[in-house]
Amino acid sequence: MDELDRVMHYLAKLPGLGPRSARRAVLHLLRKRETLMRPLADALGQAAEAVTECSVCGNLDASDPCHICRDDKRDGAVICVVEDVGDVWALERAGAFSGRYHVLGGLLSALDGVGPEDLNIESLIARAGSPEVTEIILAMDATVDGQTTAHYISDRLAGTGVSITRLARGVPVGGELDYLDDGTLTQALKARREV
Amino acid sequence: MDELDRVMHYLAKLPGLGPRSARRAVLHLLRKRETLMRPLADALGQAAEAVTECSVCGNLDASDPCHICRDDKRDGAVICVVEDVGDVWALERAGAFSGRYHVLGGLLSALDGVGPEDLNIESLIARAGSPEVTEIILAMDATVDGQTTAHYISDRLAGTGVSITRLARGVPVGGELDYLDDGTLTQALKARREV
Repeated sequence: MDELDRVMHYLAKLPGLGPRSARRAVLHLLRKRETLMRPLADALGQAAEAVTECSVCGNLDASDPCHICRDDKRDGAVICVVEDVGDVWALERAGAFSGRYHVLGGLLSALDGVGPEDLNIESLIARAGSPEVTEIILAMDATVDGQTTAHYISDRLAGTGVSITRLARGVPVGGELDYLDDGTLTQALKARREV
Repeated sequence: MDELDRVMHYLAKLPGLGPRSARRAVLHLLRKRETLMRPLADALGQAAEAVTECSVCGNLDASDPCHICRDDKRDGAVICVVEDVGDVWALERAGAFSGRYHVLGGLLSALDGVGPEDLNIESLIARAGSPEVTEIILAMDATVDGQTTAHYISDRLAGTGVSITRLARGVPVGGELDYLDDGTLTQALKARREV
């Protein structure tokens, strides 16, 4: 397999790219060899080298503890528990949360054989035991696995005295009523609030 | 900008990827650091280093002359002229051509200010002068620029004695008549053949 075939082979494995778009990407890279191809190769190599899992929260970052865990301005009393690093990025982009995170690294799933010992749950229980922590937000997906995981964690945290919360359910911003599913509408109605 | 941001920044510049899919790709890469991220970084770096333009035909390859120009089993009497390296790949995938190629590196375009001196046309005229060459296939796109370029090249080759051909026009394989444009239908009718 020659150099170009190898680049195409690996690019085609990225989510959202297939063999056809990998070929287009390779042509594009070759046309921008100095401004895109080499910088991308360097950035990938350096990231593969430098990025590690934060030993406190499980986030991926070039430093350990990660830049969020090291940030003194963030509120150490609130921990937001998420499935994945992508969820940390999404919440950080929204800019609505100033506490710390805890990345589980997955969700409990009987079907996929993922048990509590496969996730960063023990370290969460340990963090929740710190006197500094007063609230744990369970921000898992609103799916069966997500809610099973949230349920398991809130069971494990029962009796520790920290308050356990979850994200609100309801109509998403910009959502149109007649396109929403029944479950969301039911939740939005139940949790209605005075104007 | 930290390591991960840089990877996302460059990935988002690839055709078919945007900021959102670049983020997904980075997460995927980080999960497969040893089997995908490092190999991709190495493959990109090596390809950026090794791949050059073939001095004979303009194809991109790790060797110069390229593997097609070096292949003795290929028919040196027929040269297929294409716009771009992607077209060479497409024809090679089809496996229907066993001659050599000539990559112009673009098409003549008054609008974009691309003139004959910007394309690998002189080297084609020189190759066509070799006694070995008997046929030049003009395999440019069936667009205005493609046909302008084909016309210019066939003018330049007039009187050299090589036969100049172009790809057949007609109904594409799998094409349905009522979805085809008038131009294609007219060409397909004009060039009809006995069964």
